[in-house]
Amino acid sequence: MVTLSELIGAIECVQPVLNKAVLDGVSVSVQKVMTLEKADADAVAFLSHAKYAKDLPNTSAGVVLISEKIANAHQDAAPAGTVLIIVKDAYLAHASISTLFAKRAPDGIHQTAVIAPSAKLGADVSVGAYAVIGERAVIGAGSHIGSHAVIGDDVVIGEQCHIAAHAVIAHDCVLGDDVRVHSHASIGSEGFGFAPKMSENSVAWQRIAQLGRVVIGNHVRIGSNTCVDRGAVEDTQIADNVIIDNLVQIAHNVQIGAGTAIAAKAGIAGSTVIGKNCIVGGAVGMNGHLHIADGVTFTGMAMVTSSITEAGVYSSGTPAMPSMQWRRAAVKFRQMGEKH
Amino acid sequence: MVTLSELIGAIECVQPVLNKAVLDGVSVSVQKVMTLEKADADAVAFLSHAKYAKDLPNTSAGVVLISEKIANAHQDAAPAGTVLIIVKDAYLAHASISTLFAKRAPDGIHQTAVIAPSAKLGADVSVGAYAVIGERAVIGAGSHIGSHAVIGDDVVIGEQCHIAAHAVIAHDCVLGDDVRVHSHASIGSEGFGFAPKMSENSVAWQRIAQLGRVVIGNHVRIGSNTCVDRGAVEDTQIADNVIIDNLVQIAHNVQIGAGTAIAAKAGIAGSTVIGKNCIVGGAVGMNGHLHIADGVTFTGMAMVTSSITEAGVYSSGTPAMPSMQWRRAAVKFRQMGEKH
Amino acid sequence: MVTLSELIGAIECVQPVLNKAVLDGVSVSVQKVMTLEKADADAVAFLSHAKYAKDLPNTSAGVVLISEKIANAHQDAAPAGTVLIIVKDAYLAHASISTLFAKRAPDGIHQTAVIAPSAKLGADVSVGAYAVIGERAVIGAGSHIGSHAVIGDDVVIGEQCHIAAHAVIAHDCVLGDDVRVHSHASIGSEGFGFAPKMSENSVAWQRIAQLGRVVIGNHVRIGSNTCVDRGAVEDTQIADNVIIDNLVQIAHNVQIGAGTAIAAKAGIAGSTVIGKNCIVGGAVGMNGHLHIADGVTFTGMAMVTSSITEAGVYSSGTPAMPSMQWRRAAVKFRQMGEKH
Repeated sequence: MVTLSELIGAIECVQPVLNKAVLDGVSVSVQKVMTLEKADADAVAFLSHAKYAKDLPNTSAGVVLISEKIANAHQDAAPAGTVLIIVKDAYLAHASISTLFAKRAPDGIHQTAVIAPSAKLGADVSVGAYAVIGERAVIGAGSHIGSHAVIGDDVVIGEQCHIAAHAVIAHDCVLGDDVRVHSHASIGSEGFGFAPKMSENSVAWQRIAQLGRVVIGNHVRIGSNTCVDRGAVEDTQIADNVIIDNLVQIAHNVQIGAGTAIAAKAGIAGSTVIGKNCIVGGAVGMNGHLHIADGVTFTGMAMVTSSITEAGVYSSGTPAMPSMQWRRAAVKFRQMGEKH
Repeated sequence: MVTLSELIGAIECVQPVLNKAVLDGVSVSVQKVMTLEKADADAVAFLSHAKYAKDLPNTSAGVVLISEKIANAHQDAAPAGTVLIIVKDAYLAHASISTLFAKRAPDGIHQTAVIAPSAKLGADVSVGAYAVIGERAVIGAGSHIGSHAVIGDDVVIGEQCHIAAHAVIAHDCVLGDDVRVHSHASIGSEGFGFAPKMSENSVAWQRIAQLGRVVIGNHVRIGSNTCVDRGAVEDTQIADNVIIDNLVQIAHNVQIGAGTAIAAKAGIAGSTVIGKNCIVGGAVGMNGHLHIADGVTFTGMAMVTSSITEAGVYSSGTPAMPSMQWRRAAVKFRQMGEKH
Repeated sequence: MVTLSELIGAIECVQPVLNKAVLDGVSVSVQKVMTLEKADADAVAFLSHAKYAKDLPNTSAGVVLISEKIANAHQDAAPAGTVLIIVKDAYLAHASISTLFAKRAPDGIHQTAVIAPSAKLGADVSVGAYAVIGERAVIGAGSHIGSHAVIGDDVVIGEQCHIAAHAVIAHDCVLGDDVRVHSHASIGSEGFGFAPKMSENSVAWQRIAQLGRVVIGNHVRIGSNTCVDRGAVEDTQIADNVIIDNLVQIAHNVQIGAGTAIAAKAGIAGSTVIGKNCIVGGAVGMNGHLHIADGVTFTGMAMVTSSITEAGVYSSGTPAMPSMQWRRAAVKFRQMGEKH
């Protein structure tokens, strides 16, 4: 059970509770997060947009987080028994309290974990079954290493990190504090670097051993099955507050600026530098060796073939339409490319 | 060795054998599946399209499955020693008999598996080396948990499921019967949910702990390295008879209707609802919060940015052409967007 | 420390050192690879393009590899203490010496590895913690099997291969010599083969057990989280000197010709045959059952819907532009498909 004061405490980590005085002395506990529509008395819900206000009068939620800008218009519609917490941004408040209800990683170090004698684990580090931690690795206080995760030699992981089951972090990589890496992420695999050499019948490829690292800042999120390759000579770099979704490819020597968000299935080719506070939509593809300015947004599936020097929103592609119509359009597009 | 009566038995699980009386008393055994062209007397082959009928006269196959609609025209061309099994759909018959030749998962529970004392395993469950099964997990009869698979706390898996090596199924997720999950699939990882909050120099992102589950029906297939994220508040849902290929992204709170097939590298953003009996081509991308009607087909690489209300085939993109031609067309496309 | 003669030895595996006589008797050792700009006396750097020649006069590198074609014009600008190694292709020389500085896989067989009694390991095979090697598997001399890797029954792996942590190679697959497979690669998972069958309310799908193998030649690279599915009846085939990046999908029965390079996030649908010495850009998608000639290059995100019979460069898509402009162009593209 989570008490009202615990909810308020979690919210105040990110923003003030605006009606805190009114709530003083009120007693209520909840045990789950639900939508307004489905909530019962044991649940906390939130209302951040006027379009969902219609669900407020009939909610059974024990607690509702409501945004200030719609509180005046709608708070009187709340049922009598519902406790309203008024904040500037109820969506952000919902985010901050959600973690109170998340399943905790297990404590302790599982007896099957293989931890090199020279590795250093901080206070309250937990390690799952069959995890492997390499020589001289350093794991900061409060971090969790999931089952089967492999942490290579000389890796440094900060405090309060969560490395999920089956993540791999290869040798010498560095992670800051509060980094979350999800299942089957591959961090620090060898980048795709080859020099062509001719053999008799075909091209052959001379492997370039990748000698750089992956260096990741604080408060970073790396999604499931996402790949971040180590640098060729210098490092691949991901700054603070970067969030990356699943199945994303970050090639060697890419640099990603602070606060940038990258949606699922995007791919960034080698040595491209992305600025701060960018939004990269799902399945966006970027060529290598580009520079993307701060504050650039790419909509989903955009094909980025040249550098972008000004903040703004950029798009490409053609949205889906009935196939018969599309065929005619695609033929005309092809004709547009014919020499005249 | 697989006998003729075993072949007939497997076919009759999906459709009647049309010349069963003729086959009565015939004795033949095979030990592999081959094409008509490469088959020998130990092999079963199939013929479901007239265009491959040219290979029938010269086949050495011990058994040939043939579709009724071409049997009349071609069956007399079969070599004398070949046993013909006539069915309505020889491709479907081939599918049903193929499983007789597949390698079986090993029996028993490997001594290195870590199984929580509170987990409940049904009859004939097999578990591979280094698999980890969490507290209160329930595994139905006849299911196989592959080597290194991680089954989280409170997971429910139905009967006759096959969880391949290195699959991860996170806590509280539910799988029906006859579900096959392939290597490195991530089911139930935390969805990509964040609320923006401003810090001094850049955007920061407040994590939203994802409190929903992934709920999967019966007869579902999840491919290798595919990600199905758990819901934010409610569940991500995959209905019966859904088949999903490799490297697919299914974001939080997506719902996929029964019978829908999703090809490799497709991505479905959060909260999108896909109807029944849809076909989603390879590398298709869908925005979040869309509704896709029943019976919709998207061809490969389609970019789906708005809801689809009518069954039919939808496409987008421009097919590859010589680069010089493409450059001219792409320039003109860009010019089409200039203000006049 | 790597001596000058070791550097020369590594280079001469791929090309002659052109000023070898001059270097005779010179003594210098280095311990890392750096750029010209950042190198110190312990580092080797390289110069293969004139545009970086401006960094040569001020470099502190102990050794510089320089391409013959720019050596005449620039070698006199090198600092007095720098040892110049002149070769035909300094980039290729850099590639060949890079491996001297790479971290070596650990020796020996970890006590937690589960190796079937019938498996055969060649001389100097090393096996990481919790790796699992199946019955009758054969691992060639000098190969390394990483932590948690799963090698199925009857797999054959050649000499000097590197199978990274958490790679899965399913039963019966065959790998040649000098094959590198990276983390979370899924080789030999079941291909996406189903025959439709109608049930009451929706399509159902009859699984086709995939009975073929994956057969991989020599000097092949498979990236992290890449999937290569086993063949349905015959084999999926990857020829010598093929290099494949991360998150690539290779469907069942695909054949890839020698020397072909495939960048990240590409996807090749079933039974497509790709020729020799092709370059497949990032996120390229190819339909199934196509034939691609030798020497074809596809630029990134190309959508390949038909066979290509002539060598050359092919492209598709529309590059990103400001969204307001893109919206107008996309509307006109749609209008181009309307009936007139």
